[in-house]
Amino acid sequence: MLPNNKNNTAKTYKLALDAMGGDNSPYSVVAGANLFAEKNSNIFFIFFGDKEKLEPILNKHSKLKKCSEVVHTTEFISADEKPSTALRKSKNSSMRLAIEAVKNGKADAIVSAGNTGALMVMSKLILKTLDGIDRPAICTIIPTKKGSSLLLDMGANSACDAENLAQFAIMGDAFAKAALTVESPSIGLLNIGSEELKGHETVRVANQILGEEYTHLNYHGYVEGDDIMTGVVDVIVTDGFTGNIALKAIEGTAKILTGFFKEGFKASIFSRIGFLFSALSLKHVFKRIDPRNHNGAMFVGLNGISIKSHGNADKLGFANALKVAVNLIENKINDKIIEELRLTNNNNNQ
Amino acid sequence: MLPNNKNNTAKTYKLALDAMGGDNSPYSVVAGANLFAEKNSNIFFIFFGDKEKLEPILNKHSKLKKCSEVVHTTEFISADEKPSTALRKSKNSSMRLAIEAVKNGKADAIVSAGNTGALMVMSKLILKTLDGIDRPAICTIIPTKKGSSLLLDMGANSACDAENLAQFAIMGDAFAKAALTVESPSIGLLNIGSEELKGHETVRVANQILGEEYTHLNYHGYVEGDDIMTGVVDVIVTDGFTGNIALKAIEGTAKILTGFFKEGFKASIFSRIGFLFSALSLKHVFKRIDPRNHNGAMFVGLNGISIKSHGNADKLGFANALKVAVNLIENKINDKIIEELRLTNNNNNQ
Repeated sequence: MLPNNKNNTAKTYKLALDAMGGDNSPYSVVAGANLFAEKNSNIFFIFFGDKEKLEPILNKHSKLKKCSEVVHTTEFISADEKPSTALRKSKNSSMRLAIEAVKNGKADAIVSAGNTGALMVMSKLILKTLDGIDRPAICTIIPTKKGSSLLLDMGANSACDAENLAQFAIMGDAFAKAALTVESPSIGLLNIGSEELKGHETVRVANQILGEEYTHLNYHGYVEGDDIMTGVVDVIVTDGFTGNIALKAIEGTAKILTGFFKEGFKASIFSRIGFLFSALSLKHVFKRIDPRNHNGAMFVGLNGISIKSHGNADKLGFANALKVAVNLIENKINDKIIEELRLTNNNNNQ
Repeated sequence: MLPNNKNNTAKTYKLALDAMGGDNSPYSVVAGANLFAEKNSNIFFIFFGDKEKLEPILNKHSKLKKCSEVVHTTEFISADEKPSTALRKSKNSSMRLAIEAVKNGKADAIVSAGNTGALMVMSKLILKTLDGIDRPAICTIIPTKKGSSLLLDMGANSACDAENLAQFAIMGDAFAKAALTVESPSIGLLNIGSEELKGHETVRVANQILGEEYTHLNYHGYVEGDDIMTGVVDVIVTDGFTGNIALKAIEGTAKILTGFFKEGFKASIFSRIGFLFSALSLKHVFKRIDPRNHNGAMFVGLNGISIKSHGNADKLGFANALKVAVNLIENKINDKIIEELRLTNNNNNQ
């Protein structure tokens, strides 16, 4: 039985999980939930997926089984399905049913490692956009020199106008308060130079709106590509085209450089011995840049919390996406966005 | 005396150097030229800058002094000067005089580590755009897993149409043939997904032009941000906004990760010992990703070769920019672009 946590002082949160999404599903989804459940006793998991496949895995995790249920469906959306086809044909897919659970108040958030386009289109259609938000965006957490920052949009909107970018700043601000628990997050607008005349028209107008109208935000001004990983600001705002390319460029570079270093250690008997001596300190470095520890992006700007895990996440990565989901539920991300929008409107009406 | 290399079988190349541009000028410029001259006896250097400052450095490099001359000027363009002001006020600046030397046939290429915007605007005004090219672009060499690739545009054009992107592919193709000596360079268009429907209108139309009209190019199709460093293609085409941000994101990530590893080695006495054992192999890794070994971007699409060195390049970095310049002169980059344009027009007229 699913416990009802409305007005429950114990604050049990219910997560709807698309158990059939992602490269390693359903194993990573269940094992990730188990990992998360071991440290968090106040979560109830609803797995949407094939009972035949899920139950044997759940049977190995008796504690998790007690705080979860399976909603059976054999339909699922494949990674290469076009979003429009997924929308038309997959009424009973694990992803869609999981999103609907949030819509119907049966869950507090949906988490999926499945098809990003389909998850985005379906979440938008089912959960609907928050009043006052024109375009939802994908907001992701990235590791930086100082800790963590947020980057949005990550690919929901290939082309954006200045007003969209300014709204991304509002959503990023609320996300940073909720997920990074930063009191007054600093916000930067991604551009190709810090001088006033650089960049294109859209980014210059957005800079003006953020600097002159959205005065309740802690707006830092322009930042450049090399400021992202430095952690100069808590929130980096850009259009979905640039954001997606920047993030993937960073991930690709990190992967290749880590590979170079690993190769370097294997190059000779001396370097192998060297690695043994350095292993403990280097383990800390590898952990610091491990993408699994930063997994979990949100479609922000919707009437509900919809979280995207990396498609190739293992149990550790998936558990991290669950942590992001619970942080955002607990810290009421959407209430914060609504409050930010109210402040913005007040400013503009003064 | 400046030797005249017109129809000279010894093929002496003349480089006009903005001796006053960059953070470490004039020292890095002269020392970089000296480093390059040690390995290349067929170069004549013309230093544009303050004689009082240049001659004491040149006097320390007697061999270089014999294959160089100084064109005296005390004017120079500072790093933070606006390009429009530089254009108006700096008629006798070291940068401008060096560009004019290429225009007047006194040099085969200009190399500057100075103000990027000013160098771009002045190069365009003085050297003029090649017939058939609408927008010159900045093309840069990046280290990849497989070796080197090219990325353009790197920031000359914040907003581009599909036709501009297709022309960047032509210029990148010619650059790769000249500088990387690849016979049939593969060309990728940077996008946020490999599915047909992703990305914005401009990139989709450019994809169509490259796939259907520019059939003499070795067009690979779309590539994503994480393909840049992998070296999936030889040439990556994108607009100047995205290209600049992607490149700086990569540089920033490389710098920070290298820093993490260096910190890791310093963390304990064991890791310090480990580093000693691994030093030789790791030196190779650090060399592979050292940005100095990939310094030198070109304003491609102009009637002349104009090379930008990183502002903070040391002598090794500056020498690498000189190597790029000589490769492009030797392999007749502009003849190759003109030939590519002719082939494109032939295709379109068929």
